[in-house]
Amino acid sequence: MTESIRDLAHLSHVELLTPKPDESLDYFREILGMEVSGERDDSLYLRGFGDYERASVKLTASTQSGVGHVAYRTSSLEALGRRVTALEAAGARGDWIDGDVGHGRTYSFLDPDGHRLEIFYETERYIPPPELRPALKNQPSRYLGRGVGVRHLDHVNFLAVDPAENRVFAERNLGLRLTEQIVLDDGTEAGVWLASNQKSYDLTYTRDATRTRGRLHHAAFFVDQREDVLRAADIFLEHGIVIESGPHKHAIQQTFFLYTWEPGGNRIEVCSGGYLIFAPDHEAVVWSQAERAKGQAWGMHTVPSFHVKGSPPVPEEDALLAGHPV
Amino acid sequence: MTESIRDLAHLSHVELLTPKPDESLDYFREILGMEVSGERDDSLYLRGFGDYERASVKLTASTQSGVGHVAYRTSSLEALGRRVTALEAAGARGDWIDGDVGHGRTYSFLDPDGHRLEIFYETERYIPPPELRPALKNQPSRYLGRGVGVRHLDHVNFLAVDPAENRVFAERNLGLRLTEQIVLDDGTEAGVWLASNQKSYDLTYTRDATRTRGRLHHAAFFVDQREDVLRAADIFLEHGIVIESGPHKHAIQQTFFLYTWEPGGNRIEVCSGGYLIFAPDHEAVVWSQAERAKGQAWGMHTVPSFHVKGSPPVPEEDALLAGHPV
Amino acid sequence: MTESIRDLAHLSHVELLTPKPDESLDYFREILGMEVSGERDDSLYLRGFGDYERASVKLTASTQSGVGHVAYRTSSLEALGRRVTALEAAGARGDWIDGDVGHGRTYSFLDPDGHRLEIFYETERYIPPPELRPALKNQPSRYLGRGVGVRHLDHVNFLAVDPAENRVFAERNLGLRLTEQIVLDDGTEAGVWLASNQKSYDLTYTRDATRTRGRLHHAAFFVDQREDVLRAADIFLEHGIVIESGPHKHAIQQTFFLYTWEPGGNRIEVCSGGYLIFAPDHEAVVWSQAERAKGQAWGMHTVPSFHVKGSPPVPEEDALLAGHPV
Amino acid sequence: MTESIRDLAHLSHVELLTPKPDESLDYFREILGMEVSGERDDSLYLRGFGDYERASVKLTASTQSGVGHVAYRTSSLEALGRRVTALEAAGARGDWIDGDVGHGRTYSFLDPDGHRLEIFYETERYIPPPELRPALKNQPSRYLGRGVGVRHLDHVNFLAVDPAENRVFAERNLGLRLTEQIVLDDGTEAGVWLASNQKSYDLTYTRDATRTRGRLHHAAFFVDQREDVLRAADIFLEHGIVIESGPHKHAIQQTFFLYTWEPGGNRIEVCSGGYLIFAPDHEAVVWSQAERAKGQAWGMHTVPSFHVKGSPPVPEEDALLAGHPV
Repeated sequence: MTESIRDLAHLSHVELLTPKPDESLDYFREILGMEVSGERDDSLYLRGFGDYERASVKLTASTQSGVGHVAYRTSSLEALGRRVTALEAAGARGDWIDGDVGHGRTYSFLDPDGHRLEIFYETERYIPPPELRPALKNQPSRYLGRGVGVRHLDHVNFLAVDPAENRVFAERNLGLRLTEQIVLDDGTEAGVWLASNQKSYDLTYTRDATRTRGRLHHAAFFVDQREDVLRAADIFLEHGIVIESGPHKHAIQQTFFLYTWEPGGNRIEVCSGGYLIFAPDHEAVVWSQAERAKGQAWGMHTVPSFHVKGSPPVPEEDALLAGHPV
Repeated sequence: MTESIRDLAHLSHVELLTPKPDESLDYFREILGMEVSGERDDSLYLRGFGDYERASVKLTASTQSGVGHVAYRTSSLEALGRRVTALEAAGARGDWIDGDVGHGRTYSFLDPDGHRLEIFYETERYIPPPELRPALKNQPSRYLGRGVGVRHLDHVNFLAVDPAENRVFAERNLGLRLTEQIVLDDGTEAGVWLASNQKSYDLTYTRDATRTRGRLHHAAFFVDQREDVLRAADIFLEHGIVIESGPHKHAIQQTFFLYTWEPGGNRIEVCSGGYLIFAPDHEAVVWSQAERAKGQAWGMHTVPSFHVKGSPPVPEEDALLAGHPV
Repeated sequence: MTESIRDLAHLSHVELLTPKPDESLDYFREILGMEVSGERDDSLYLRGFGDYERASVKLTASTQSGVGHVAYRTSSLEALGRRVTALEAAGARGDWIDGDVGHGRTYSFLDPDGHRLEIFYETERYIPPPELRPALKNQPSRYLGRGVGVRHLDHVNFLAVDPAENRVFAERNLGLRLTEQIVLDDGTEAGVWLASNQKSYDLTYTRDATRTRGRLHHAAFFVDQREDVLRAADIFLEHGIVIESGPHKHAIQQTFFLYTWEPGGNRIEVCSGGYLIFAPDHEAVVWSQAERAKGQAWGMHTVPSFHVKGSPPVPEEDALLAGHPV
Repeated sequence: MTESIRDLAHLSHVELLTPKPDESLDYFREILGMEVSGERDDSLYLRGFGDYERASVKLTASTQSGVGHVAYRTSSLEALGRRVTALEAAGARGDWIDGDVGHGRTYSFLDPDGHRLEIFYETERYIPPPELRPALKNQPSRYLGRGVGVRHLDHVNFLAVDPAENRVFAERNLGLRLTEQIVLDDGTEAGVWLASNQKSYDLTYTRDATRTRGRLHHAAFFVDQREDVLRAADIFLEHGIVIESGPHKHAIQQTFFLYTWEPGGNRIEVCSGGYLIFAPDHEAVVWSQAERAKGQAWGMHTVPSFHVKGSPPVPEEDALLAGHPV
């Protein structure tokens, strides 16, 4: 890519399914410190104090955990049009749907592994009610000092049977940029990290060891300081929320991280740090099998559950996938 | 002092008077993140998650702001006896009173400047209710992740007409140790920092520029990390609480600090850092007038209000002081 | 701007003039912790561990302090061509020059206030010598743990007689985006913050109270954590480097900052925090005169020297400016 | 103990034996950031910027790794006399020896497990040379901003065949206070944490799984912020020093920690946090086998090497121990 035209502007929100909506709500509101900013049907909408749109999480009551969809905002209406054209040319079966709470007309489609993605341009710039109005006008809403206090949705990690197939799909049709990847000795891509902008990633596909399609590995929320992640660990500890792994620093992307499971059964990361990519001609960093065997940045080995556990696929997407064209 | 016998074990609590008890309560509970642990008459009792006694703040509704009293716990019953003997031999007019919420029989007296001090030994080791039980048994109660989240009361700073007089009183009768002091070119002691233990100070007297007796400069609460003080600044900002000074680092004691005023009219510091004094023969660090003129550690000059503003004296102590013997 | 085409990819480097090259070198290498990565004629080239190009600072021995030039890398060769076409159409007197150490052919021109700017595309991706090779391959070079340890050049702040004129120039000819600005009651733009990418600013013009053209206010270097800025303050203190202002948090841009002067006479900021701008249709935040009067985020007032002191203009640019066309 | 008389004032220094003195020196000076403050025979003496005595580490060239001795300073000459009387009454075979670099006459003896301990009172208050003079006079020497930058020696952890036996010895003869301990289901004390002052521990005995006497588990150095421990991890990573465990938070003592091995073969901890014990009647916190099985504070399990690896016993002490009387 010789031009820095990026049709996807940024990750916008993630819809998480939960069989325990009240407990999940408590996790996102009281522990992560997010705010409820909308409600419709069986869904609640939440946001971090740094999210400028209405919501970055849609929490939907369901029979099981899982990811309903992940949405990106495009850079313009034209960019949205270009992406839909590219997707349909590639044979992706998608549909235009009415906007959800907080955003306008949307194109909804599946990635090769069967995760539902949505793209849209028109959005609602969130105007907080008086009690959430920030002291500084360059901040979307008030920092509440409640719980972890996440700033915004940072990235989503999908499990996939074949990360390479999804990477190609995302590069070609969505214009995402590959920034780091794991390539095993046999050439298999075990993980790919993709970015729509100067954050070094906002969408990740890692190989599903169980060979199941459509699963979620985790959704991640950003805090400003590494110390905030340590403080988050103390807060999770006090709430009896098991920390699956971390706080520690990833070798890949150098993200400082911590993983827990929200009560509904979806893995949630609190993260900080990492780096920005300024170079327009950045070449993806490739990690070999031997390099990955060294563990995380400071040597901690990945917990076994990390390689196999994930939120299950959504049944209806699963059915659709039988005839997935890409 | 060739032996490290210290009859006062540690600062225990401070009683603050407030004409706006509801707003003060909101400040201590919602913003500082303390917990209400008792109530009697016109007073509420509060504690930080690291205070092992029942309370470190007694908040008393009153017609004006001010410090009701400051209490130390002694190292033993014998130590309490020794201190009372010393105080009475020195002519201090004190009285034995029944214990307040959370502690036993207490000796109450005035320092030379007219601040009321109390010393006691018997105390109640706080047993938190189930919802405040900590995850780790070596912590007095749960870290709530609400607001600033102060750990414990750290120190109290009294304004005094003559800090030297009060220093001598505290050294001789209470066994406190001078750790740092400001001595002006004319020999005046403009400030004295005293410690009952290995914290480098828990009681400070600084000169009252208005020549008023019995005033409080501030009470300070400890947080673990400097980053917690920065986070506190963000929280105060969002609550519309004016930050009088800081965050910055004191040259004296190297405390990382931030000052606000609680709504009742008492100055409150949130602090971290500083250092411990391990040497049994530590010699007090003396700061000259020229050295103090350099400002704080990183060069910030002290705000003018810092030299003159304080909580007013308590009228009844003021009356008593007319005939104060020391 | 409906498309996120950004022809300038990122701020690349700043050339600082110094009459005390040895002392300035010591400041950048031993105190800021940068590494020397090149030398030519009277100039030394330095870089932070996170700069991917050869250098982000060119330190040039001179008779006085000042900014030699500020350079941006473009997104592509085509983008470079487009910018030159736009600049020449606007009447900017520029010249193509040979590349400096670390980058290729460059277009050099003056902004309306007389600061020299350079744009180029071809650059040298820095390959560190063995002793500077990083442990993690996604990092340009080793984090040395020496001094402050700045990651990369963050932004440059020019003083200007008329910030608005320079803003218009930068928006139209360079494609920079206005993200925040100060507009006084009389409509004067007292400061403008501009960005080439998702960082919320990399170039700032603030009004020169002395009405002098071509002066530098400061160059800023990024560290990852707010705690790193506090640690920097301790390091400056120990080296006898006066801290002009901070550590504190700017209201504008929310940058956590600290300012010192390097021995050659240029103001240097160490900064962290701030926020990223993801919205493709972000509207500039406008601060009024009254809002600015409130001081910085946590209430500290700006030091008077901040409004008048700066590195002087470069004489030769000054002469050229007499007939500046824009 | 009803009185807070503590005859041992604080941990003073640790002598580490190293078969690789040059590499060990590099570790302590360049990576930990300590300063060499003395030399005699085959030993170098080093200190952190917050140590007030001449040295907190004595690094002695030897044929193998291990702990030469651990020294405490007493509260007074009288206190030293009292401890020697108690030790000799208990049958401990000790000797008076001439002081080492930095301190006066010393009583040297073995604990029941065969570690050599020394106690003394007279010490040299370190006066730094001009280049190490601190900016703030209440700090022993300059914070150098080099490497990790440890403040002072924090604690020593001995492996022992029977921690309980050593606990009783330390309580009775040295006046140390038990603050936390692990008691297994069969009543075995698997670990005991002891303190001479208000730090919550400075000497630890943990059970040697290999049933070897006289081994060192680790020596620990303090940094002010948890963020400093994270930064230390980055520095170790860049120096190719393997991090055995951490950064993480201990459940016991709540210390934030990181363990590495210095090149000579001794385990070194960098730590921060924890808590102070103010209560004169603090009761030791007892951890059961089930509680310990939960892992560290945030759930990380202890690495297996932690239970078996340690520096070997010193041969000559080993020989002496055959007839150890306690």
